[in-house]
Amino acid sequence: MAQTLLKDTSVGIIAGGGQFPRLIAQEARRAGLSVVVCGFYGHTDPGLEELADAFQLLHLGQLNRLLAWFHDHNVRRLCMAGTINKPKALDFRPDFRAARVIFSLRDKGDDSLLRAVLGELEKDGFSVLSAADLVPALRCPHGTLTRREPAPEDWENIRYGWPIVSEMGRLDIGQCIVVRQNMVVAVECLEGTDATLRRGAELGGRGCIALKMVKPGQDERVDLPSIGLTTMRNLIEYGYNALAVEAGRTLFFDRAESLALADEHKLAVVALPRSS
Amino acid sequence: MAQTLLKDTSVGIIAGGGQFPRLIAQEARRAGLSVVVCGFYGHTDPGLEELADAFQLLHLGQLNRLLAWFHDHNVRRLCMAGTINKPKALDFRPDFRAARVIFSLRDKGDDSLLRAVLGELEKDGFSVLSAADLVPALRCPHGTLTRREPAPEDWENIRYGWPIVSEMGRLDIGQCIVVRQNMVVAVECLEGTDATLRRGAELGGRGCIALKMVKPGQDERVDLPSIGLTTMRNLIEYGYNALAVEAGRTLFFDRAESLALADEHKLAVVALPRSS
Repeated sequence: MAQTLLKDTSVGIIAGGGQFPRLIAQEARRAGLSVVVCGFYGHTDPGLEELADAFQLLHLGQLNRLLAWFHDHNVRRLCMAGTINKPKALDFRPDFRAARVIFSLRDKGDDSLLRAVLGELEKDGFSVLSAADLVPALRCPHGTLTRREPAPEDWENIRYGWPIVSEMGRLDIGQCIVVRQNMVVAVECLEGTDATLRRGAELGGRGCIALKMVKPGQDERVDLPSIGLTTMRNLIEYGYNALAVEAGRTLFFDRAESLALADEHKLAVVALPRSS
Repeated sequence: MAQTLLKDTSVGIIAGGGQFPRLIAQEARRAGLSVVVCGFYGHTDPGLEELADAFQLLHLGQLNRLLAWFHDHNVRRLCMAGTINKPKALDFRPDFRAARVIFSLRDKGDDSLLRAVLGELEKDGFSVLSAADLVPALRCPHGTLTRREPAPEDWENIRYGWPIVSEMGRLDIGQCIVVRQNMVVAVECLEGTDATLRRGAELGGRGCIALKMVKPGQDERVDLPSIGLTTMRNLIEYGYNALAVEAGRTLFFDRAESLALADEHKLAVVALPRSS
């Protein structure tokens, strides 16, 4: 099996939204692999087609057609990349196999749903890789990444919020919180990080701290939190003092450009180990 | 001291927003007590003056003037009633004593701030009572309070969310969460229950469940969660299936009218013990 994989000349990407699928596709092509992409209407950038040897869009929930697509293209290795917002009722069209997966779930948090999908892919003989392992440079390094260090009171808020954002992940609630003056101002649930940052600033005013941590026990192959230019622009617009993320496992897109922008606006960005 | 209190013929109310201070004032007058009220600009209904033997409004943070007001009126027993939204910078004018309290706080959650204020009141010789003890009929009774029982899937969501809302209280984050299909859709922080219910419905659609629980270890004298007609109207407008609150310690305003409205719209309201 390992032999087969080593000789494998293609990779399949199950592509959600955002730029992550594009980066993965580019890297894979650079490595001489053929790239087979399956995306989702309303989530995936149709422009990805340019970077793919084969490309199709499905509705969320068409699990049988997704599996058949990769089988038909003789793909054995898959990775999941990009964001899928939790499906609204109208977008979601579970076929028989998807429905079976969903009904078998103990709970319907992100985690258990994505794990169940992963299980189905493996049951069908696919090997599922971590997208971050395909583009390791995206992993956020340790330390203070900007020229500005967080001020002492910012560090105090980071230390206050860090175990709390860990709890939010443990409870499968969300990966991001906003803290101001040792108060939790906003907790991300379904609305996503951008909406959470906006609400945090509306409620907490300027000078908030954003914290983002990988869920404890998160399978890296299904979901890692990411930051990038949009995050920086929002943090700057809303007057945040600092962003603290989990080092190593947060994906940092457009890092150089993002940090230059942060430096220009005196925003501090730090990446901490989980147990800090 | 107890002797003195028994003979005491007046009660002081530190009045926040909402109708709770009014109910307390009415009950106290009915019991033949004289009622001395101190409220806050922008928070307290100025109409309360009609129900008070003495009435003044202060800015949040004027702790010395608040203490002096009750001393001057020979009030020994105080209760705190009504909601104070966390002060925005402009409304908040801490005097020297208030500033000292704030700087001495380990963290600035609702809890520790209100406990510190309580400590200052007691340090000045005031006896602070629970407002709920003054109007015990406000305490929410156990059981299913509406004609409609929650459906089995609603119960499943209530059982899923109940320990989670307890955790949110333990972490001093908030007292209310919204659950749909065993996912946490929204967590209340600074924005208050009404805004949380609205966001929950926007993200989770119709059929959500709202859960509200007293913070573990909450001092009943400083803050108890409350529900009433506004809560019911919001839950109905946003298409909620059920509301679950902590029995005994949630304050239920306008109970009969609220439950009639819930019954009319097939909303289920249940009150559970903490450990359910």
